Amino acid sequence: MSIDQKVVNTIRILSAEQVQAAKSGHPGAPMGIAPTAYALWDKVMKYNPADPKWVNRDRYVLSGGHGSALIYTLLHLYGFGLTIEDLKNFRQLGSKTPGHPEYGHTVGVETTTGPLGQGFANAVGFAMAEAHIAAHFNREGFPVMDHYTFVTCGDGDMMEGISHEAASLAGTLKLGKLIAFYDKNGITIEGSTDIAFRENVGARFAAYGWQVIQVEDGNDWQQVLAAAQQAMQDERPSLVICPTVIGYGCPAKQGTAAAHGEPLGPDNLLETKKNFGLPLDDFAVLPEVYEHTKLAAEKGAKAQKEWEALFAAYAKQYPELAAEWKVWFSDELPCDLLHDDAFWAFEGSNATRNTSGEALNRLAARVPNLFGGSADLCPSNKSNMKNSGYFSAEDRDANNIHFGIREHAMSAICNAMALHGGVRPYAATFFVFSDYMKNGIRLSAMMKQKVTYILSHDSIGVGEDGPTHQPVEHLAGLRAIPGLLVFRPADGKETAAAWYVSQTDGRPTCIVSTRQNLPTYDEDGRDALKGAYILSDCEGTPDVLLMASGSEVEQIMAAQPILAEKGVKARVISMPCMELFKDQDAAYQESVLPHAVRARVAVEAGVTMPWYQFVGLDGAVIGIDTFGQSGPYKKLFPLYGFTAEHVVEEALRVLGK
Amino acid sequence: MSIDQKVVNTIRILSAEQVQAAKSGHPGAPMGIAPTAYALWDKVMKYNPADPKWVNRDRYVLSGGHGSALIYTLLHLYGFGLTIEDLKNFRQLGSKTPGHPEYGHTVGVETTTGPLGQGFANAVGFAMAEAHIAAHFNREGFPVMDHYTFVTCGDGDMMEGISHEAASLAGTLKLGKLIAFYDKNGITIEGSTDIAFRENVGARFAAYGWQVIQVEDGNDWQQVLAAAQQAMQDERPSLVICPTVIGYGCPAKQGTAAAHGEPLGPDNLLETKKNFGLPLDDFAVLPEVYEHTKLAAEKGAKAQKEWEALFAAYAKQYPELAAEWKVWFSDELPCDLLHDDAFWAFEGSNATRNTSGEALNRLAARVPNLFGGSADLCPSNKSNMKNSGYFSAEDRDANNIHFGIREHAMSAICNAMALHGGVRPYAATFFVFSDYMKNGIRLSAMMKQKVTYILSHDSIGVGEDGPTHQPVEHLAGLRAIPGLLVFRPADGKETAAAWYVSQTDGRPTCIVSTRQNLPTYDEDGRDALKGAYILSDCEGTPDVLLMASGSEVEQIMAAQPILAEKGVKARVISMPCMELFKDQDAAYQESVLPHAVRARVAVEAGVTMPWYQFVGLDGAVIGIDTFGQSGPYKKLFPLYGFTAEHVVEEALRVLGK
Repeated sequence: MSIDQKVVNTIRILSAEQVQAAKSGHPGAPMGIAPTAYALWDKVMKYNPADPKWVNRDRYVLSGGHGSALIYTLLHLYGFGLTIEDLKNFRQLGSKTPGHPEYGHTVGVETTTGPLGQGFANAVGFAMAEAHIAAHFNREGFPVMDHYTFVTCGDGDMMEGISHEAASLAGTLKLGKLIAFYDKNGITIEGSTDIAFRENVGARFAAYGWQVIQVEDGNDWQQVLAAAQQAMQDERPSLVICPTVIGYGCPAKQGTAAAHGEPLGPDNLLETKKNFGLPLDDFAVLPEVYEHTKLAAEKGAKAQKEWEALFAAYAKQYPELAAEWKVWFSDELPCDLLHDDAFWAFEGSNATRNTSGEALNRLAARVPNLFGGSADLCPSNKSNMKNSGYFSAEDRDANNIHFGIREHAMSAICNAMALHGGVRPYAATFFVFSDYMKNGIRLSAMMKQKVTYILSHDSIGVGEDGPTHQPVEHLAGLRAIPGLLVFRPADGKETAAAWYVSQTDGRPTCIVSTRQNLPTYDEDGRDALKGAYILSDCEGTPDVLLMASGSEVEQIMAAQPILAEKGVKARVISMPCMELFKDQDAAYQESVLPHAVRARVAVEAGVTMPWYQFVGLDGAVIGIDTFGQSGPYKKLFPLYGFTAEHVVEEALRVLGK
Repeated sequence: MSIDQKVVNTIRILSAEQVQAAKSGHPGAPMGIAPTAYALWDKVMKYNPADPKWVNRDRYVLSGGHGSALIYTLLHLYGFGLTIEDLKNFRQLGSKTPGHPEYGHTVGVETTTGPLGQGFANAVGFAMAEAHIAAHFNREGFPVMDHYTFVTCGDGDMMEGISHEAASLAGTLKLGKLIAFYDKNGITIEGSTDIAFRENVGARFAAYGWQVIQVEDGNDWQQVLAAAQQAMQDERPSLVICPTVIGYGCPAKQGTAAAHGEPLGPDNLLETKKNFGLPLDDFAVLPEVYEHTKLAAEKGAKAQKEWEALFAAYAKQYPELAAEWKVWFSDELPCDLLHDDAFWAFEGSNATRNTSGEALNRLAARVPNLFGGSADLCPSNKSNMKNSGYFSAEDRDANNIHFGIREHAMSAICNAMALHGGVRPYAATFFVFSDYMKNGIRLSAMMKQKVTYILSHDSIGVGEDGPTHQPVEHLAGLRAIPGLLVFRPADGKETAAAWYVSQTDGRPTCIVSTRQNLPTYDEDGRDALKGAYILSDCEGTPDVLLMASGSEVEQIMAAQPILAEKGVKARVISMPCMELFKDQDAAYQESVLPHAVRARVAVEAGVTMPWYQFVGLDGAVIGIDTFGQSGPYKKLFPLYGFTAEHVVEEALRVLGK
């Protein structure tokens, strides 16, 4: 057996071995994909395990994250520091080898995958970031950004809608350095793919404008290699279809659904090792396998060294570009935004979707590497950067993106652009359609990526479009996601705060904005950085605490003087971001919401659920726990109780007056 | 001008007129789609405005719901009772003509559309219901279920991932009576479709196994009619591609994005009327138009009469089938499930995913028209009905469905199957992937459809698969949806309650179940129908209220005797469904959660947000406000504080002990 085939089979065995040790997991996919992975990791891809974050490395995404054992095997064999001990601890608490690959947890994992299709769309995002950065920085003879993005994906990825969205956009954008390998093994959990999936995937991708390459035998790494090399020459993105066998090499289980999601069993694993002529001991690896795989590390180190020399020469010839490169790849902003008063200045009456657009444009004038756009709602959600054109197959250097009506892919693409580095991505749509990308937003939070979500038309304030377009439960739903900042600004200055946070905090940020006009208040926008603050206080200890976010701050502000006339001292608290408020120390929280004051009224044009943590059993929440209706918002707001008078009523009620 | 063309142009004008009157809305799509709508509503479709719910009517879906003015115009012209006055009140509060078509609000609207792609997937669901019912009931010479499903859709529908999922499944299932008309007008909100969407839609649908018919001119209703007739002959689903002009007929705006989402303007509207040679007065309709359109009503009445005669003869020849038909189309269950003790009996240790599977199968033995399945996770989420096979192109009569890995389409399909009537649909996946169908679930709730969602693997109890597969925020997210019942049963008997509610309440129901085993408690499962109940009480007034749902009922039950030993009287409350509990009268709520008892501890392996409404500022919630980790669940539960000891600690803390 050739050394190449020995490595391929070792990849299979080490993957199956992990699953066996854990007594749970997915051996089938790794065993089928092993030849493709070998062709890529051993022959094609440019990476340096000694510096896994080298910016010009090729990116590899395992879209079917349930095959995580494969990536751990590769990271072990190719020198990324995972040990045999790590593999033995597959799926154990605290191990480097969790059930699905987790970005930030295991060195060499480029993105967290598992929810099917996300990885495929991530790959499109990596390729978009690469194309954009390359167009901006590369110069004749200096391809300083010049890498490929490879993704392996399975039938599940192909069935999920997100893969359609991402593939259609990738075809439109002609992302030639994106290459997907479709592990076509004909098996899903419920049986043969035929039971639910008879489409011609190749024809579908050709319809998207992809090059489609059919490999005859996906078990033959050389055929896959040849296909990869052909794919790398085309200006279109490429889909390489690899017919494989799930659980390949396991005589009892290969080609069956039984190979998918459970260990092969000790006897079957042994039979598989025998079948491959590999050592029978647990986790045994032939020395010649390591001798071979370490060559890739040497090759990678050399590649990075050459790139560094190239970049040094580039920096000499184009010092300004090299300086700009530093800015793009820095986590810090290139300006002191916090003290830049022009960024924070807003006045008059305006919708926060407009002030968000203004803040975005002020930011774009100061920060060169914002890169984002909308799911075909830019004129409505004000997500255009006026100082730039639109990224396209013809213009790679432009900063605005037409994502098309593809929210789910948009979120996954933005996640990958943030992971890639060099750009600051944002995604915009109507707030209600955050539903369509819920899992992508969840993954932004899980991966702690600086993705900004512009979510306009935030409540029944949408008005005439009616309940399908009026978010009601969405603030609660997004606030429930751990590690996500949900900002609902009350005016332009708070919008600036939201944008500031989105670029400096590190967590993903949702900027939830109104369609309708709102007043500007007297605060300093920087007050909002604490998540909640006293916008207008009474003298002495308040009788009642009034709190709200966004547009409903208007009603509590208006209620304050009416209550004062009735002898009730009300404190007005603007709470644009519950998460940031909960991050503050106990003393600050107490200074805003004194524990002793139990008469509390919260007002928000959304479901009441999130506010009980602040008002308790004795307070009141004015919210909307039903769907809205179609009609002018000025009629809807009073209908649903969002008036100063109703706030006053509730305040008096909780005070027992 | 022919009378046909006059009607087509009247449809255009009446639609644009509504938008003009409302000063908001979307004139462009209706003006482009009018010829297709005319061909369908006037020449092809079988319906009876005098009985809009006739079960064998053809279904029509306007997937681009923003074009709602079109459907209102059609419902007016074709006699469904909408008046000119209704059209004048387009998008006004309380009108019959809201911004997007709303099922249950406007007679003749088959489904609520607006979020793009939902309507397209709904159409697949209508066609699946029809095919299934037809296969079960039709007999030689008696096609008692025999209707088509027509859907018009636009570029947005085609871009959304849900359309891919639904179309791929429809092709696999060979739904020949499903016919989609693609309104290809080349324009989206941000400009020409070319900016983001260059795929070959026809080739893509051919790849799905659809018949694709290219109409040369979508403005010519006769061409569209011919295509429709051709489509109706094929055993494959058909896509009819209609090149149209957005805002057709408006000299100043046709073919531009400006025609999409704002009124034409009074002058432009007048010019358009002149252009068509139609009356210039507001909402004026030529008498010959009404004379013509009323013929369709007569045709429809006749068709229904013929069908009724057919059905009467069928009932004579096949009385048992006719009786069964009645059962299928009844909203009531054919059995007294509430008092059927065999349905409610569970014991021993088991995972609620298993008891859910058992309850489903008990139900399937009693109720013939359950029709559902899983997004390729049936062996895991136990959603198979063992007394039936799988619905497919070859076997239409079987009750189980392989949805494929397509959650979003699955939800929309189930919505439509419920809307269709005759079947009781359910959809199953892992709880975490409810993310992928959030908007579909939202629409189940908005349309008040009896769709059951089986959502297994409900917490960090998932274990080794790690955070991508461990729901954390999902209970909060779904509970936030108005009108949705979220059931998280603590044992088999509560699972039975969830299934009972799912079939009798009328609202959609989520059944959220565990991967891991749980004990069976001493309650009667019917106790759970009140949403929350005292599972184990102390003597006299409790010192502390312990409440939990699902798997964490185990920890509060175990805490009760430990607390008793310490002299603390604890009441144990199982709260499987917050929504049903909140439906109960104040007296019952007080009997479970006495207002005076403020020492309260809620325990749930999810984010804490939903529980503050029950524990207030002085209680405690043991939850998980971060993502989980990969590892065996028996290690994860104590790590995140889900132990009886921690419950005891928190109880003592809130008691100040």
